[in-house]
Amino acid sequence: MNGAESLINTLVANGVDLCFTNPGTSEMHFVAALDEVPGMRCVLGLFEGVVSGAADGYARMAGKPAATLLHLGPGLGNALANVHNARKGHVPMLNIIGDHATTHRQFDAPLSSDIAGIAGPVSHWVHTCERPEHIAEDAAEAVRRAAAGQVATLILPADVSWGDSPGGAGPVVARPGSAPVPAERLQKALGMLRAGKRTGIMLGGRDVSGEQTLLASRIARATGARVFTDTFPTRVRRGAGTGRVERLPYLAEFALDALKGLEQLILVGAASPVSFFAYPDLPGRLAPEGCDELVLAQPGEDIEQALERLLELLDAVNVSPDVYPLELPELPSGELDANSVAQSLAHYLPENAIVVDEGITGGMACFPMTACAQPHDWLNQTGGAIGWGLPAAVGAALACPDRRVICLEGDGSAMYTLQALWTMAREHLDITVVIFNNRRYGILELEFQRTGARGGTPGPKAASSLNIGSPDMDFVDMARGMGVSASTVATIDEFKQALEQALAAPGPRLIDVLL
Amino acid sequence: MNGAESLINTLVANGVDLCFTNPGTSEMHFVAALDEVPGMRCVLGLFEGVVSGAADGYARMAGKPAATLLHLGPGLGNALANVHNARKGHVPMLNIIGDHATTHRQFDAPLSSDIAGIAGPVSHWVHTCERPEHIAEDAAEAVRRAAAGQVATLILPADVSWGDSPGGAGPVVARPGSAPVPAERLQKALGMLRAGKRTGIMLGGRDVSGEQTLLASRIARATGARVFTDTFPTRVRRGAGTGRVERLPYLAEFALDALKGLEQLILVGAASPVSFFAYPDLPGRLAPEGCDELVLAQPGEDIEQALERLLELLDAVNVSPDVYPLELPELPSGELDANSVAQSLAHYLPENAIVVDEGITGGMACFPMTACAQPHDWLNQTGGAIGWGLPAAVGAALACPDRRVICLEGDGSAMYTLQALWTMAREHLDITVVIFNNRRYGILELEFQRTGARGGTPGPKAASSLNIGSPDMDFVDMARGMGVSASTVATIDEFKQALEQALAAPGPRLIDVLL
Repeated sequence: MNGAESLINTLVANGVDLCFTNPGTSEMHFVAALDEVPGMRCVLGLFEGVVSGAADGYARMAGKPAATLLHLGPGLGNALANVHNARKGHVPMLNIIGDHATTHRQFDAPLSSDIAGIAGPVSHWVHTCERPEHIAEDAAEAVRRAAAGQVATLILPADVSWGDSPGGAGPVVARPGSAPVPAERLQKALGMLRAGKRTGIMLGGRDVSGEQTLLASRIARATGARVFTDTFPTRVRRGAGTGRVERLPYLAEFALDALKGLEQLILVGAASPVSFFAYPDLPGRLAPEGCDELVLAQPGEDIEQALERLLELLDAVNVSPDVYPLELPELPSGELDANSVAQSLAHYLPENAIVVDEGITGGMACFPMTACAQPHDWLNQTGGAIGWGLPAAVGAALACPDRRVICLEGDGSAMYTLQALWTMAREHLDITVVIFNNRRYGILELEFQRTGARGGTPGPKAASSLNIGSPDMDFVDMARGMGVSASTVATIDEFKQALEQALAAPGPRLIDVLL
Repeated sequence: MNGAESLINTLVANGVDLCFTNPGTSEMHFVAALDEVPGMRCVLGLFEGVVSGAADGYARMAGKPAATLLHLGPGLGNALANVHNARKGHVPMLNIIGDHATTHRQFDAPLSSDIAGIAGPVSHWVHTCERPEHIAEDAAEAVRRAAAGQVATLILPADVSWGDSPGGAGPVVARPGSAPVPAERLQKALGMLRAGKRTGIMLGGRDVSGEQTLLASRIARATGARVFTDTFPTRVRRGAGTGRVERLPYLAEFALDALKGLEQLILVGAASPVSFFAYPDLPGRLAPEGCDELVLAQPGEDIEQALERLLELLDAVNVSPDVYPLELPELPSGELDANSVAQSLAHYLPENAIVVDEGITGGMACFPMTACAQPHDWLNQTGGAIGWGLPAAVGAALACPDRRVICLEGDGSAMYTLQALWTMAREHLDITVVIFNNRRYGILELEFQRTGARGGTPGPKAASSLNIGSPDMDFVDMARGMGVSASTVATIDEFKQALEQALAAPGPRLIDVLL
């Protein structure tokens, strides 16, 4: 058995049985080993940003990591933005980066680079396996790290892949259960909730489950606290039957307003809320000055158990939650715009759908509009690096082949990793892509104003830099070129029809919405 | 004047008057300043890999750096592969990376990352400007570094952009001339050339000019030496009227054969030849064991002057070079294949064209076939990170608006940065893109054999990972979707016609060659 076979054996033994890849020469022994070791599925992306984004979407929905297989420093570079997003979202990620053979390092060949150096800033753990007989142990450690919500990056020199590794599969790693929240923190939270002050509970972290929203809502009703989620929770259960929560607004101005008056903030998986960007005249921290913050639970801890315990401590186990009813909006008529698109989406959203949201400005209305839709999961862009949505939809669909995935995409962000469409077609994934095609970087027009640059009004050169409508892009042509059926819609009736059909059809469909 | 205005003033004063960008919120004051400071042209890419690749192609042809403007760590990550290629090719590159305001660093906002950490492995110089009053000096230093053939990366926090910077434009940097080659190295080379041993002269580095090929050829004729270029010189002048040189083959097996028997190797801008990748049974160094190597000139040194001087020392100023004649091949008939495509290209290649070569396996015949074509420049992929060709063509066309650019692209590599087509259309660039569409990663099929993995024969999973023909991609659809006229050709007559028309038409054209 060679090192590559030992590696794949170890991964499969530990439940990592899907590998997203775009391989190169230094990974050929790994690729060869896919046919020697049973149990590993391999999904090809045409660009590494697709690979890492798909691994992110998969891990969010599967609750366990996939592997990525990447080609040296440049392959990692191409993947980096979506590795960053995964890291910020506490998403399990296991990267395997092929490197030159250890004997080849001395030559500074064209593809030589400091892979560990590039990986460091976006990984919790980076390790280079130096010998084939170590690969099983190293792979098991990588799985352990990734399963704990970390980005684990294992560098695999070519001669470690092709060298003899008699060990076979490495140890099976015990999956770490979530750690319980310490009692003293529960007592502190209890004290805060009983203090009679204006209190917020903010849910966040890797997975805001429906149960979490219900428990938090019951605590809120028992104590008068308000319940929030952070702006971009990694995964959140929503729709009919989930507990009522407020989402912290993206715009710092509105977020400050939402948190105004709070005297206490209990963070449950969420981080202390801060502004996405700095602005000349706005504070970075969003909670009011003097607001007392408690970190009740970190993302890796057992949040449901902590909330249950808190409810008991509050003597409030009989308090019922404030639950979103099933309340589908009427199908809209009139203009095709962000609101009518959102309304149609809320109407048609299938039960248990997965919504991957990178709709940016054009898609902003979809989140509030779907609060009382059929129950569903919503995945957010956690690190601010665009080009995440289409790949994440690929991964989510592979994790949940029996569920419908709807990907909301801005035109600008879609163009970052449009190659994901090809993988959707190749793997026949049931994904409906909605492109909010407004032919501009709408978010940047807004941000230009907010930064106050040039009095908030772009001159001609700046305006041109924010305008991607010259030339206009035709997403139907581009999708077809990659094997995905697509249609352009210019009226709300066309959109409703296209959406209904797409959600009923097998395989991927793209709807190019001309806003 | 704010920091951003001071920065742009300094760049323009130093001749850096083109900026490739995909900006974000942290760069809005820079974008705003484009309208306040005259003289800076700004070209938008839909993805940062386009931005850095275009800056590379521009610098190779303009002989001076452009600036890139990138959005935080993820934007740099997206650009990284082509920054790597530029670094390996000794190409001047000046990256400006926007960062959060210095006051915002403490908050670990979603887009916070260790930008300097990511930049380090692909940059010769990384510097964070901490105060707006320093930006002019810092920018001048970045220009000085880049102009010397380095990758200079300047990190620009948002508050340095928007803060007051009374200094205005920074100092104008004297462009460093190429350093002369020291006399003792010339004497050593002279000794080697007179030693009666089998000697090779290998040209390489940033720019193998026509004059260099002629001088090297004269030295070779005077001494019996052989003249090579390295496998992928950054830029090389070729075709009728240039001096005869052998290109070192890509495949290590053939390269070993080409250098076999050499007792001495004089490196002129080129590095000591090494195998692109390691293979279980091949050496890494390509020159024969015991071959005496001399570095006559580094990439930044005055190579033409050194070769002239050597010719004088050899008393050979009257020796004439071995020159490629103008010898256009007949237009081919018969099958559409790599050879007939190459033959048509050699026939039609316009005088003074720029060929950007990322044709990988499908385009391999084009280089030898064009040896006696009209004189032209040939740009190679210097770092092995695919996704360079289309962006580099953008930059080359902007540097030389009066010349024709032909971009040879593999289907697999084209899909890495296909967004470059949109910038070609937006800027109306005279680029002819030839896609060698063989629906597979042909180079990896070859490399799989060469590594000997699984006896050299891929199993079904491996074969699937190297096959990008399921689904087939239609480059005509994708190009049209980005505003570029395109046609598919399935016969050699269709190709000849499409190529002739494309080379005569204004603006970009894409030809999808079904091999």
